[in-house]
Amino acid sequence: MKQWELQCSRCSAKLPFRYQDMKCKCGGTLLVNYDLEHVAQTFTKTSLALRYPSMWRYHELLPIHDPSHIVSLGEGWTPLLRLPDWESKLSLKRLWIKREEQNPTGSFKSRGFSVAVSLLKQAGATKAAVPSNGNAASALAAYAGRAGIQAFVFIPMDCPSLIVDECPMYGATTVLVDGFIHDAAAIIESGRTEQGWVNVGTLKEPGRVEGKKTMGLELAEQLGWTFPNVIIYPTGGGSGIIGMWKAFLELKALGFIDCDMPRFVCVQEEGCQPIVDGLNKSLGGTSVSNTASLPVGDRIIPNPTGMRVPNPPDLELLLSIVEQSSGTAIAVSKEQIAQATHSLGSEGISSSPEGAATWAAMLALSDKGWLRPTDSVVLFNTSHAMKYAKLGTSAAIPIIRTYDDFMLYQDI
Amino acid sequence: MKQWELQCSRCSAKLPFRYQDMKCKCGGTLLVNYDLEHVAQTFTKTSLALRYPSMWRYHELLPIHDPSHIVSLGEGWTPLLRLPDWESKLSLKRLWIKREEQNPTGSFKSRGFSVAVSLLKQAGATKAAVPSNGNAASALAAYAGRAGIQAFVFIPMDCPSLIVDECPMYGATTVLVDGFIHDAAAIIESGRTEQGWVNVGTLKEPGRVEGKKTMGLELAEQLGWTFPNVIIYPTGGGSGIIGMWKAFLELKALGFIDCDMPRFVCVQEEGCQPIVDGLNKSLGGTSVSNTASLPVGDRIIPNPTGMRVPNPPDLELLLSIVEQSSGTAIAVSKEQIAQATHSLGSEGISSSPEGAATWAAMLALSDKGWLRPTDSVVLFNTSHAMKYAKLGTSAAIPIIRTYDDFMLYQDI
Repeated sequence: MKQWELQCSRCSAKLPFRYQDMKCKCGGTLLVNYDLEHVAQTFTKTSLALRYPSMWRYHELLPIHDPSHIVSLGEGWTPLLRLPDWESKLSLKRLWIKREEQNPTGSFKSRGFSVAVSLLKQAGATKAAVPSNGNAASALAAYAGRAGIQAFVFIPMDCPSLIVDECPMYGATTVLVDGFIHDAAAIIESGRTEQGWVNVGTLKEPGRVEGKKTMGLELAEQLGWTFPNVIIYPTGGGSGIIGMWKAFLELKALGFIDCDMPRFVCVQEEGCQPIVDGLNKSLGGTSVSNTASLPVGDRIIPNPTGMRVPNPPDLELLLSIVEQSSGTAIAVSKEQIAQATHSLGSEGISSSPEGAATWAAMLALSDKGWLRPTDSVVLFNTSHAMKYAKLGTSAAIPIIRTYDDFMLYQDI
Repeated sequence: MKQWELQCSRCSAKLPFRYQDMKCKCGGTLLVNYDLEHVAQTFTKTSLALRYPSMWRYHELLPIHDPSHIVSLGEGWTPLLRLPDWESKLSLKRLWIKREEQNPTGSFKSRGFSVAVSLLKQAGATKAAVPSNGNAASALAAYAGRAGIQAFVFIPMDCPSLIVDECPMYGATTVLVDGFIHDAAAIIESGRTEQGWVNVGTLKEPGRVEGKKTMGLELAEQLGWTFPNVIIYPTGGGSGIIGMWKAFLELKALGFIDCDMPRFVCVQEEGCQPIVDGLNKSLGGTSVSNTASLPVGDRIIPNPTGMRVPNPPDLELLLSIVEQSSGTAIAVSKEQIAQATHSLGSEGISSSPEGAATWAAMLALSDKGWLRPTDSVVLFNTSHAMKYAKLGTSAAIPIIRTYDDFMLYQDI
């Protein structure tokens, strides 16, 4: 076989690489399949230990042949931060948070677009379009800017305005859509041929899943070539879950790791929870119900728009991964997310609403006994809180001129 | 000698470590002095090559004895991104930008506060205060949150509101000051004894310079244990310049590097330029004058508040470093900064106004012939553009429902 080709995740049919149609005839999603014997020649624990801390350290497991096609802005090898205080509080063996907000575009989306835009460059493409709830748009805009490719981004209008504003800053043609992400996707499909756009939407091309896969490779390496017991991940389109699952299968096939696969937990927002609903339908209720919602008064609550994907491109594949891994899915409320943002802030971590949702899910799963004292758990913080900020809160912060003013304010 | 002590940067007097008074009797600044013979036992190029990519890989050159005192959120080892297109455009040998915005608090300030708060933890301190133009306040807030130390931050009211808002998110007592950073500093000095605050302002304690020093250590290691010819750095209080200078001296003393020191360029904002003015006064005009200012219409221009330090705590030391290194200082306008933000954006880089100021300075220095074709140049991007955003710009982005709407908008 070639160094890599496409293979259907459902029927295992094999095909050469192509853009724009990642669905197999059988309806399954086509993913990249590597010649692992070839990979194993240079991809060893010893060689990896000496490589530069970037997601491109895993280049044998990425679909770019020529290093000159790599479009990099400094993505990957993000910190894995341990939270020992909370291990005791929640009776967990280990608790970590993966700080994906430290990627170049301030979100985990950097990874997928580094690979997707490298593939575009490799293929000589000049225009790319994406429907996005925000961070994917800004990542396409940045990487396309770096590569000299024209980017067109279509964003539902409820997306936080700072993330929207990043896209023209990176030089992308930026449009707000009065509708959901699938409405934005429909607009791209309508114009694709006429405009010459490559659609780099979720599961529309093979690069983004491969880029997200590096989260799994990196996590395993950072943990000393082992898996955690549980991964709690905010899930919209689900390419991160698919990518990490694929990473772990590849590491097992390469003989790097022999332990059980982690239990995957998909976290969604109450009211937009196709994975939670799908799991209940498929297995008669294996998702964890969530009853811990608390009122937060009239605080301004940011929206977890990254999880707002009513129709994931391959729900069947996602459900199968969650089930195979003995994982679950859980929906959390906006109020729980706001509380969780505060808890993570007190630990020194600026979290996106989606990242905070994993914290809220962890509390609920701990409360229900789904998480066990023998569990090592990894949460994913996908972006910074500030990207989602609604300004105006600093209006409540006092303004002083002297230390006496400070004392006065302290007394109030 | 002990593993480390304080030493005056002016008269070389040596003193044991103490908080709160970093000025020597002679008026010089006290900096940390290490027993380099002791350091050299374990600090080798070979041992470093295998260490974890964090600024704490340089622990022998940081003033924390016990690893359990390290307060870390995943700081350092930020990407050094090469910009080959601009090397040709500007006739430079090499051009890199150091992406300090990828630190845990979204700015280079993470480094200094990781060490400063570790020292507080080591000393058993419970309360710390800082006067700050923004990112230092948010970094103290985050690291203090992680360490369980109470933070009090005093911020001039022209600071971007998103950065202000981060501080209460991390749990800090947050106050806006109607004045400059030295007014905020005066308030802390008034209340310090009564409140039991450790003042962690610039050059008030030894940790922040030592943390900033890791930018220099890291840069040298990322360049294969060599120095660039020129470092262009946005300069407010100047602890980054002092820290990097110190790093390079230590590396030379350890025998790691034998080449010339880099020429340091301090970048300031027109109208708040004590280093530029000081250099002109001291040497009769070695700063580079800047005539490239361009109008930018009625665009909303963010403020480079991080450079607004009218009275740097040790101007004499800063000037001496710039002069010894054959460097210079240059002031750029808000309009040049806005243009530079756009240029960096087109390269896929989200830059703070201070980071963009280094780009503007590079263009001016290239234009004047101060930068030469044999020069390798490093710029520092200190934070993300979004932290400084003034919302409302997305109002100009079109809202559509269909592909026909998109075509209509394209025609306008």
